[in-house]
Amino acid sequence: MRESFEVTSSTGRYCVTSGIGLLADVIAENPGMVVVIDARLEKYLPAGVSRKMSIDAIEANKSLEHMPETIIGLRQQGVDRTSHLLAIGGGVIQDIVTFCASIYMRGIPWTYMPTTLLGMADSCIGGKSSVNVQGFKNLVGNFHPPSAVLIDMEFVGSLDPEQVVGGLFEAVKICYARGNEEFQEFLLDASGGALAAPDLQRVVMRALRAKKWFIEIDEFDQKERLLLNFGHTFGHALEAGTSFGISHGIAVGIGMLVAQKYAGRKKWLSAIGEERSAQLRMYIHGLLARCGPEFFSSRSPVDLNLVLAKFDNDKKHRRDFYRVVAPRGDGALELLSEPRNEAVRLEIAAEYESVLGDIGWRYHRAAPRKNAA
Amino acid sequence: MRESFEVTSSTGRYCVTSGIGLLADVIAENPGMVVVIDARLEKYLPAGVSRKMSIDAIEANKSLEHMPETIIGLRQQGVDRTSHLLAIGGGVIQDIVTFCASIYMRGIPWTYMPTTLLGMADSCIGGKSSVNVQGFKNLVGNFHPPSAVLIDMEFVGSLDPEQVVGGLFEAVKICYARGNEEFQEFLLDASGGALAAPDLQRVVMRALRAKKWFIEIDEFDQKERLLLNFGHTFGHALEAGTSFGISHGIAVGIGMLVAQKYAGRKKWLSAIGEERSAQLRMYIHGLLARCGPEFFSSRSPVDLNLVLAKFDNDKKHRRDFYRVVAPRGDGALELLSEPRNEAVRLEIAAEYESVLGDIGWRYHRAAPRKNAA
Repeated sequence: MRESFEVTSSTGRYCVTSGIGLLADVIAENPGMVVVIDARLEKYLPAGVSRKMSIDAIEANKSLEHMPETIIGLRQQGVDRTSHLLAIGGGVIQDIVTFCASIYMRGIPWTYMPTTLLGMADSCIGGKSSVNVQGFKNLVGNFHPPSAVLIDMEFVGSLDPEQVVGGLFEAVKICYARGNEEFQEFLLDASGGALAAPDLQRVVMRALRAKKWFIEIDEFDQKERLLLNFGHTFGHALEAGTSFGISHGIAVGIGMLVAQKYAGRKKWLSAIGEERSAQLRMYIHGLLARCGPEFFSSRSPVDLNLVLAKFDNDKKHRRDFYRVVAPRGDGALELLSEPRNEAVRLEIAAEYESVLGDIGWRYHRAAPRKNAA
Repeated sequence: MRESFEVTSSTGRYCVTSGIGLLADVIAENPGMVVVIDARLEKYLPAGVSRKMSIDAIEANKSLEHMPETIIGLRQQGVDRTSHLLAIGGGVIQDIVTFCASIYMRGIPWTYMPTTLLGMADSCIGGKSSVNVQGFKNLVGNFHPPSAVLIDMEFVGSLDPEQVVGGLFEAVKICYARGNEEFQEFLLDASGGALAAPDLQRVVMRALRAKKWFIEIDEFDQKERLLLNFGHTFGHALEAGTSFGISHGIAVGIGMLVAQKYAGRKKWLSAIGEERSAQLRMYIHGLLARCGPEFFSSRSPVDLNLVLAKFDNDKKHRRDFYRVVAPRGDGALELLSEPRNEAVRLEIAAEYESVLGDIGWRYHRAAPRKNAA
């Protein structure tokens, strides 16, 4: 069944549609579109696409250093101010095309077809790009929403369990951030456990409608939308500190567990807050189990010194404060400023240790810093 | 005397102030600002600026390939989301800082202090950046207006005659594009011939107020603002076809002459239009004379094959039409679509020959293209 809703952004409204067979339809209806596609997905393209460019969807390619190559590729496809791009792929493709479309001849329109569950349930709306520079993750980026988002659920068939789980982590994060009512509805939707396309479509559309609230009220990440960083500061650090050995979605799931532990240590939660926190924790652990029994145990140990160095480097912190999103009171999320000192750093290290212990991923402990305050 | 007005953009309002001594004041009032400055102008910086980054203001540095270097430089200065940049320099510095400020952590605020007359009288408002990619001039760019524009007329003392003349070409272009009344006022302001700071300040503020009309009515270059490309398509081609042997402002002056010749050949002008056209032509020739008698005659001959190849490559053209701005009727500018064929190409070549002959710059004629329509 096809389902749609609209998102309002500063540059206009765009429609989000989900269903089956959207790719074939959009190509048939817009033969002149220039397709930019994840190289691994080229086989899904219907015949008759004359202008296309395929990109290896790897982290190294979503870097400012690689943008000239993509821009020149677009030029070789004859892209001009009247062109319209169709981007097909996950987060890396979205970041690259958001960025390039926003600067190519000072901005051309594009349509986005997310192919990962994370893209479908979360990042496909909002219009943000995140681009690396000389190894600094997401140091630059911008806002350039697509003209339309088309979610073809057939791409779910191309995903492995880790990708599905990662997408569900972002989905539950959004619904949890939106408030308890939305979170409980999400758990009902997702509790069946079957992850077939129709169930996933329902979960995807619930998460996107919840996210729509955040991005319409705070398009430019000033206040409410910052709560969607729940799990991200801790998760990014783990991702980066393990040389991107785990996917972003999985890292966010683990990051939410770390944030919950931190809130627990600080006794920020009421009894109700503890209960909701436990619901979320159980959901996350249940999904992690789907990745298989050796998903973590077979990995090299995490070097917590490295993870904490990455945490410390996060661009969201201020000079004197770490900025983290965590649950408080009855479980609602807040953006908190924690003193940026050695004591807090070691507390955070302890939360990572505790979570890694729970999920069965070995680690090397972080050493206290010399001369630290 | 200090003088101010406001410009309204999609991202808010910003104030444009001109006068003497603005640099010293802004540094004294905002010691925390991170200064990005044209390396040649560092000597003008007052003592006490602790965070600064100097950039060679050369064409090669306003390229997408060089942006990572600037971004990393900002990071080394400790720039974060709460930082404010102060950019001091001409068009190259403005392009680099507009671009970098717009993407650094998805956008940080900046203040612009133009130091060339072209920057003061034209490009400092509007918020556009133009950035080269692998030798394709201005293939990418974006919009990210400054929080404030401070025009310190003391920088006029750092300019050579060519830079002053180039700035006046952009200034007269704006006033001509705005309409005959504005053009006549401009000629009165500028006719004294003295180019001392107080006169220039009057001319600068007149041009900027005229430009304000264009950018407020058409911030994103959809319609009215396109008329400000008068002289630019022909001028860019000459600039690029001579390996940037002349400055942008001078090229625009010559480009306006070419556009006028083209309008003349097409008999687009009424008697009144011819008269106004002659006024503009005389003003341009008068300024070119200020560059000195050997300014053009001492140069290598222009290769018109190269210039026409660059003209043909301009991103503003459509597949079947050249897009040029030229005067029509009583002299008002229009954006025109001319058939993109060999006959028109050779006509354009003839206009370049005629103008280059008038100003005493030798050239090699363009050869007809083989197999051309």
